[in-house]
Amino acid sequence: MSAKARVKPTPTDHRTRVGRERRASTKRRILEAALGVFAEMGGAAPVIDDFIKAAGVARGTFYNYYDSVEELLAATTAWLEEDLMLSIEHELDGLTDPVDRLALGVRLWLRKAEVDLVWCAFVAKAVTHGEVVEETLLRDLRNGARAGVFVFDSVQAARDLVVGTLHEAMRRMSASQVPATFTDEVARLVFRGLGMPSRRVQAALRRPIPTFRRAMQPLR
Amino acid sequence: MSAKARVKPTPTDHRTRVGRERRASTKRRILEAALGVFAEMGGAAPVIDDFIKAAGVARGTFYNYYDSVEELLAATTAWLEEDLMLSIEHELDGLTDPVDRLALGVRLWLRKAEVDLVWCAFVAKAVTHGEVVEETLLRDLRNGARAGVFVFDSVQAARDLVVGTLHEAMRRMSASQVPATFTDEVARLVFRGLGMPSRRVQAALRRPIPTFRRAMQPLR
Repeated sequence: MSAKARVKPTPTDHRTRVGRERRASTKRRILEAALGVFAEMGGAAPVIDDFIKAAGVARGTFYNYYDSVEELLAATTAWLEEDLMLSIEHELDGLTDPVDRLALGVRLWLRKAEVDLVWCAFVAKAVTHGEVVEETLLRDLRNGARAGVFVFDSVQAARDLVVGTLHEAMRRMSASQVPATFTDEVARLVFRGLGMPSRRVQAALRRPIPTFRRAMQPLR
Repeated sequence: MSAKARVKPTPTDHRTRVGRERRASTKRRILEAALGVFAEMGGAAPVIDDFIKAAGVARGTFYNYYDSVEELLAATTAWLEEDLMLSIEHELDGLTDPVDRLALGVRLWLRKAEVDLVWCAFVAKAVTHGEVVEETLLRDLRNGARAGVFVFDSVQAARDLVVGTLHEAMRRMSASQVPATFTDEVARLVFRGLGMPSRRVQAALRRPIPTFRRAMQPLR
């Protein structure tokens, strides 16, 4: 038990916690509504009033959270990505080897893109990614390099290889049909690029891809 | 001499050729003006009238070429990329080995991004690429695979690896400083991802990068 946890809660702590929970729930309400607006508008460019109306919150409240459509699009995408990350973490539970984790994580990500083309098209439009995704990826890349399985001088270059390749592959998948073998071929080139020995790559690709057990945010 | 070249030119051929040249020159005029508009507007979103005014062509003429800002942005980027490709081809002159060609081509592309950050930021915003770039890349990838140096089942996946990684690297380079070794590290991960044997990768990276001799379209 940490020192912090032993401290007796004060009324201020309680108010802080309630405030934090209220903020999280308002934020979620805005993002769920935003997702609906983005999905419905399709080609047409939505304006900030569309989001305020859909979320059913006061204008002032809305601007406490987001200032522009661009910011909202980034937040919605980050939220969808983090929702997928939670589902991936659920499937990786018990896997401690960083290389196994990253290899299965990449394949689960591509599997999601393959079976949910609406999600795939939405996320493929993103130019930034959520912090959780970035941090998890960098951590697994660094740990894999420390274990001597990934071989690179620059973790940034390695991250750009993974994110860039998956992004282009998702753009392709949302625009046209790909053969059933496509996603594993993409994963293979990425793993090889990271310096994984070929036997290790083959073993990673032989492992069956589990079905997602955690329910994810539906896209309307 | 091909059969086609022996045919005597008719007045119609002449008119066709003059028409084609006039079209090419109007198109170039529109694209040069568009580049200036995109560069000047920066964050603000330009509207189609900004481009018509800058190009100094009749509205009707303009719409013969481009219909929307998006289309114009794609065309301008493709044009800049193709301008670079001409300069790269100039440096690759005499290189016939597809792997040497692609390896030096990738490094020259990254060198351009490194020394011309305005170009880098502009092209990094593109979501589509010019046909010339796509076709040249696919041809070199296929030839390299035929020669047994690149190893992949899907040329699409290999293309996504190259384009996606370079795109992310360029986004990074236009947003923040990178170490001097960054671009060659990116190239190394891409070459390895394509299946190039490590000795071949090392040899490719030891080759000096020539200076561009051909003048390129300046970005204002």
